[in-house]
Amino acid sequence: MIELQFVSKNKHKLLEILSLIKTMNADDIIKVVLSPLPKIEIQSNDLVEVVRFAAQYLAEKGYTNFFIEDSGLFIEALNGFPGPYSNFVFKTIGLEGILKLLRGVSNRKAYFMSAIALSFRGEIKVFIGKVEGEISHEKRGKRGFGFDPIFIPIGSNKTFAEMKLEEKNKFSHRAKAVKSMIEYLMQTLTSNFHGNSVANIKNYD
Amino acid sequence: MIELQFVSKNKHKLLEILSLIKTMNADDIIKVVLSPLPKIEIQSNDLVEVVRFAAQYLAEKGYTNFFIEDSGLFIEALNGFPGPYSNFVFKTIGLEGILKLLRGVSNRKAYFMSAIALSFRGEIKVFIGKVEGEISHEKRGKRGFGFDPIFIPIGSNKTFAEMKLEEKNKFSHRAKAVKSMIEYLMQTLTSNFHGNSVANIKNYD
Repeated sequence: MIELQFVSKNKHKLLEILSLIKTMNADDIIKVVLSPLPKIEIQSNDLVEVVRFAAQYLAEKGYTNFFIEDSGLFIEALNGFPGPYSNFVFKTIGLEGILKLLRGVSNRKAYFMSAIALSFRGEIKVFIGKVEGEISHEKRGKRGFGFDPIFIPIGSNKTFAEMKLEEKNKFSHRAKAVKSMIEYLMQTLTSNFHGNSVANIKNYD
Repeated sequence: MIELQFVSKNKHKLLEILSLIKTMNADDIIKVVLSPLPKIEIQSNDLVEVVRFAAQYLAEKGYTNFFIEDSGLFIEALNGFPGPYSNFVFKTIGLEGILKLLRGVSNRKAYFMSAIALSFRGEIKVFIGKVEGEISHEKRGKRGFGFDPIFIPIGSNKTFAEMKLEEKNKFSHRAKAVKSMIEYLMQTLTSNFHGNSVANIKNYD
């Protein structure tokens, strides 16, 4: 069993991640807890750069076995706005602001992207996930958080906010990134288990 | 004569600063040049935090005698949007996006703020400047950069983009912050001049 610190204050994200870990039957080897460590997010259009910097910052201070996630909504007709600043934009102009900016705009294409930087045993690995879709003409649904009520993924007629957690996780950018991370961890833990007697007998390095 | 590195790629800002230094008759003791050092901007609603972090980051790497400036437009009816992300917002939704968001909104109040972190002789000092005004109903003027064509400072009927540099500098947030910094430097340099024979004779510390 390993414990990973999720450097975030977002309980919605934690719930999504815990649900995924359970679905993947990884909950008996991976435990995830929210961490009070500081998440230093730089201003960059590149989410990978954002999480990598944040992870390196903590790694340089001696921390390991944690991960940092950042995600954003990128709207084609708005040149990628709100992108990495989705949280600030949500808190200031909100869903209504996005709908107003897209009033009269026929191109509703958008994607959500998630990037995770995992620091594990002193090494930093990055995982990404993406989901294409479009911006609805009005907000719909009460679940989820952030821009979920105005985002409809390709393959569904529902917004993310109209889906239950399990359904959202079938489409979601964050679920894809988290899945990649969990698969990597499970592989690493089963093929190269430090500090465990079975692994020690086989003398893996 | 001291040389300060301005950690920025923005030539418009450099021109504003050089013009001010000349107006203040400080151009024979302070020389400012653009610096290729990295400007690590964190995501924060607080510009002071943004520049302080960026300065500390470089200071920890051994650099000194540089300054970092960050500024933003804070619109009251949009809860402070675009704020510290003004540059990204300008590049994505642009002036038209801001005007669209304010369509039908009677409260046009806004302010520009500038924060400077100066690293001088190993110490970091912060200076700020602010100008209150309002957002115009259409863009006007060709000078300046960024949101200048839609911002009218209190005390004028012109947008920043309709003003010559000297006129803009009478109102501008950045001019106020830069002035404070120059005054501080001139005071420090004249009252406490290290490495200069006159100062050494007086044995100031």
